[in-house]
Amino acid sequence: MLKRTVFFVSDGTAITAETLGHSLLTQFDGLIINQVRVPFVDSEEKVRKVLEAAQQAATDDEHLPVIFNTIVDGDLSAMLARANAHMIDLFGMFMEPLEQALGVQRSPSVGMAHGMHDIVSYEHRMEATNYALAHDDGVSIRFDDAELILVGVSRSGKTPTCLYMALHYGVRAANYPLTDDDLGDGRLPAFLRKHKKKLYGLTITPERLVQIRETRRPGSRYASMKQCRNEVETAEALLQGEGIPIISTTHSSIEEIASRILNDLGLQKQLF
Amino acid sequence: MLKRTVFFVSDGTAITAETLGHSLLTQFDGLIINQVRVPFVDSEEKVRKVLEAAQQAATDDEHLPVIFNTIVDGDLSAMLARANAHMIDLFGMFMEPLEQALGVQRSPSVGMAHGMHDIVSYEHRMEATNYALAHDDGVSIRFDDAELILVGVSRSGKTPTCLYMALHYGVRAANYPLTDDDLGDGRLPAFLRKHKKKLYGLTITPERLVQIRETRRPGSRYASMKQCRNEVETAEALLQGEGIPIISTTHSSIEEIASRILNDLGLQKQLF
Repeated sequence: MLKRTVFFVSDGTAITAETLGHSLLTQFDGLIINQVRVPFVDSEEKVRKVLEAAQQAATDDEHLPVIFNTIVDGDLSAMLARANAHMIDLFGMFMEPLEQALGVQRSPSVGMAHGMHDIVSYEHRMEATNYALAHDDGVSIRFDDAELILVGVSRSGKTPTCLYMALHYGVRAANYPLTDDDLGDGRLPAFLRKHKKKLYGLTITPERLVQIRETRRPGSRYASMKQCRNEVETAEALLQGEGIPIISTTHSSIEEIASRILNDLGLQKQLF
Repeated sequence: MLKRTVFFVSDGTAITAETLGHSLLTQFDGLIINQVRVPFVDSEEKVRKVLEAAQQAATDDEHLPVIFNTIVDGDLSAMLARANAHMIDLFGMFMEPLEQALGVQRSPSVGMAHGMHDIVSYEHRMEATNYALAHDDGVSIRFDDAELILVGVSRSGKTPTCLYMALHYGVRAANYPLTDDDLGDGRLPAFLRKHKKKLYGLTITPERLVQIRETRRPGSRYASMKQCRNEVETAEALLQGEGIPIISTTHSSIEEIASRILNDLGLQKQLF
């Protein structure tokens, strides 16, 4: 297979370069791509190191590397442009069209995107993360302050989805596991029922659930196909009966699930 | 202030459009920007709704909206291009230069960037998240499988930083709170000492720590300036004495801290 090297270079965290670069690169098959993050490139010396690394990659790969550049500083960005590489200058490509579209000039400064630029929104995200941890897995069932409550059987993906929504979008996302006790009743517990509009169900195929539970408690009743199938079927019937929306985590990532749920519940939060 | 509307439109999660768009928009001051995520635009009907929303925004703002478009489907993307808006077509702008740079043609498919495209890497991230939760705040002190261990006083930012590194980069990040008991000894506990190369210290100014602790336990000794100052000074002296790197969370976001630490410890993980 062909080998290529791609650098994500920034004077900030490099997260923007990396996110866009990664997204574009997933559209290419048949390549081995060595992706190298180079954050905090804020001096000539550091740019020089990138130039050397690019040269080395060009020699090793027998093909020029690609550099995704989000350096805000004009001088350092110009210095990086001398690299023996294909340069994709994100801010350079977009800033002029964006200035025209918005009808104002930009005021360049470093590290705005993933720093503490917007302190209110940042603190909101940290508070939401604390909230998600304090309202994870039935730890607390006082859901008055929750913006949404994920329900589903154990290991259906509730915790990472809540943490993602909290960390990224500042959403106070709680979750509650539907156990045999809840499922036996055939109805939602009262402390969930009174927040019905905030509820969203996660489900999963019994086959996948067995896989996940097996890695935690091999050979247990908890991980058996009979138990998993029974829990999943009962939980789905319960949620459907209550008219609660359900999404399957079997083939969807937490990013996809979070996007769907925020969209469905009308929680239009901004990223970061 | 001038008002502008910006749409992030995708047939996937819209996370790529949103991340780049947000990053670019932070470079503009003096605007009220209404940012609207529109994920999963995978039908003509949904494109039509975006066209209508764009028209409405143009009327309301008395200025054309901006659309960041990452729709992979060619027909739907072309249909969206008819919007009464400034169009920034991310894949359109980058794909050709990237194909030339990499020397191969792309094979377009939807939802690759934030889906379960790379199942191994996805499961790795989920496992790391479970690991971070199970090794949070001293819950478990068996750190043999940790890739890094954050240490610092209570509320210095360890938990959200670990969760972020786990969720995004699949790094098994543990953390351990330095309490009065540990600090009184003036040396690291043995279970940390033996993993010294994996340790990274988080610190914070006493003033900021008081603020954070006050929101949790108002008026407590725990939140007093005397206690906070004493803990921070003792912890910093301890970590410096042991030669453990320290980073301050007072003015840095978890994204910045995570980027620095992964870089410093040589944990070159790829995003998603």
